[in-house]
Amino acid sequence: MNSSQLFEQIRQKRSFLCVGLDTDLSKIPEFLLAKDDPVFEFNRAIIDATADYTVAYKPNLAFYESQGASGWTSLQKTIKYIRKSYPSIFTIADAKRGDIANTARMYAKTFFQILDFDAITLSPYMGYDTVEPFLDFKNKWVVLLALTSNESFDDFQLFPNSETSTPLYEEVIRKSMNWASENNLMFVVGATRSEQLSHIRKLAPDHFLLIPGVGEQGGKLEEVARYGLNKQCGLLVNSSRGILYSDISMRFAGAARAKAMLMQTQMERILLDAGLIE
Amino acid sequence: MNSSQLFEQIRQKRSFLCVGLDTDLSKIPEFLLAKDDPVFEFNRAIIDATADYTVAYKPNLAFYESQGASGWTSLQKTIKYIRKSYPSIFTIADAKRGDIANTARMYAKTFFQILDFDAITLSPYMGYDTVEPFLDFKNKWVVLLALTSNESFDDFQLFPNSETSTPLYEEVIRKSMNWASENNLMFVVGATRSEQLSHIRKLAPDHFLLIPGVGEQGGKLEEVARYGLNKQCGLLVNSSRGILYSDISMRFAGAARAKAMLMQTQMERILLDAGLIE
Repeated sequence: MNSSQLFEQIRQKRSFLCVGLDTDLSKIPEFLLAKDDPVFEFNRAIIDATADYTVAYKPNLAFYESQGASGWTSLQKTIKYIRKSYPSIFTIADAKRGDIANTARMYAKTFFQILDFDAITLSPYMGYDTVEPFLDFKNKWVVLLALTSNESFDDFQLFPNSETSTPLYEEVIRKSMNWASENNLMFVVGATRSEQLSHIRKLAPDHFLLIPGVGEQGGKLEEVARYGLNKQCGLLVNSSRGILYSDISMRFAGAARAKAMLMQTQMERILLDAGLIE
Repeated sequence: MNSSQLFEQIRQKRSFLCVGLDTDLSKIPEFLLAKDDPVFEFNRAIIDATADYTVAYKPNLAFYESQGASGWTSLQKTIKYIRKSYPSIFTIADAKRGDIANTARMYAKTFFQILDFDAITLSPYMGYDTVEPFLDFKNKWVVLLALTSNESFDDFQLFPNSETSTPLYEEVIRKSMNWASENNLMFVVGATRSEQLSHIRKLAPDHFLLIPGVGEQGGKLEEVARYGLNKQCGLLVNSSRGILYSDISMRFAGAARAKAMLMQTQMERILLDAGLIE
């Protein structure tokens, strides 16, 4: 999938919602725990309930790894299920990997060939040769951490802070734009960082941005859209806990659907106002 | 294990060798592929062959994840086997994780509670709150990427390069030393970076450094020791491919033992010369 095709999905669904499948056994409805694979059963129900309003799914690997081998089986079944049932939906492995070249090649094979994700999140600390093996795969994407939504983002991402005009996150964006195009590179930018979002949009006018932190972490959708939209939308806004766990009774899937629909409605209004859909 | 106990292991073994268990199905002896769990069988043989000369084992997660659920089973069996058969050997999950706080907590639980590793490698890009959940575990260690051995290390780790006197990797070391002590924090410093090693040793006189890249990537053991040794040795020098795949016939384990012994002999000489053992 390239960026035009992703935009086409956004136009069709009238949404730029990404649902984060951060599936936590201690938070899912209790009755599911009796099933053979509670994580997959939960995911399948959430996916079926939200697919109408969603252009991307993003499982965070930590939640699957915490279940050991069975977690990997749940993850593999989940991605297969999305591929089979909703082949046009974009899939992101939220793995935040970053290792030396020959190891990065193993990760690329794992996430792009074996698991068949469309995209993976990577950490830029080790530089180009840790990202390059992922770029060798056609129609696959790297989503590079730039400016994250967590509290301590400024420990290093704003280095060297006020003394100079180029903080580290900006160097990450500038440099990596030489490695790949807007058809295989996105950036993670926290929704809580809207003051920097318009600046990033100027640096990278054509790239998609993956925006976590709307809802749970206090970022506002309207602000994100005001500063972040581009001519192909250019945004994937993620929600995880806000959608997954809004109700943990038997009716959890219906509640997730209602939450996803609510976000889609807000996104549709934003896309209409921006003239990106009719 | 604290740093004194780790030093005691180094004195007993007369070695500061860490063996990287980067077990690659395409490189291990072919006759093992007929076994139920070739990765574990290979690891067990390598561990039994090298344990006399080794103070630490470091499986790189990428190699296990590339085998999906069965890879996790192999990893779990490997760490259990080390714990049971060689309980005094230090174990490092080379995972290079780094995620927001609640996700980092999941990773910490996975690697420290479920898999029971002594240490995990982490990427510093997202700052303190991505490291903190790992520091909550008693007697467990964080090994933070500082200056890595790969080619493109200088894309960001030397930022902001020549204009100022504090490159990013130095800021990572300085700042993280406020988060933890020499009893639960180490740094990854590539053996190929010996020109910076003496500088890092001044910044962090008491911390252990995990040094990859001796052998395969061109770093020299004597140089590493000259610039990196401290009064508790303060070094874990890793070798992976050089030990694992020096012979891929039926005699692979004996060959690995010989290679590990060779490195231990060199290390013993270094420890003797430095007056750290008698």
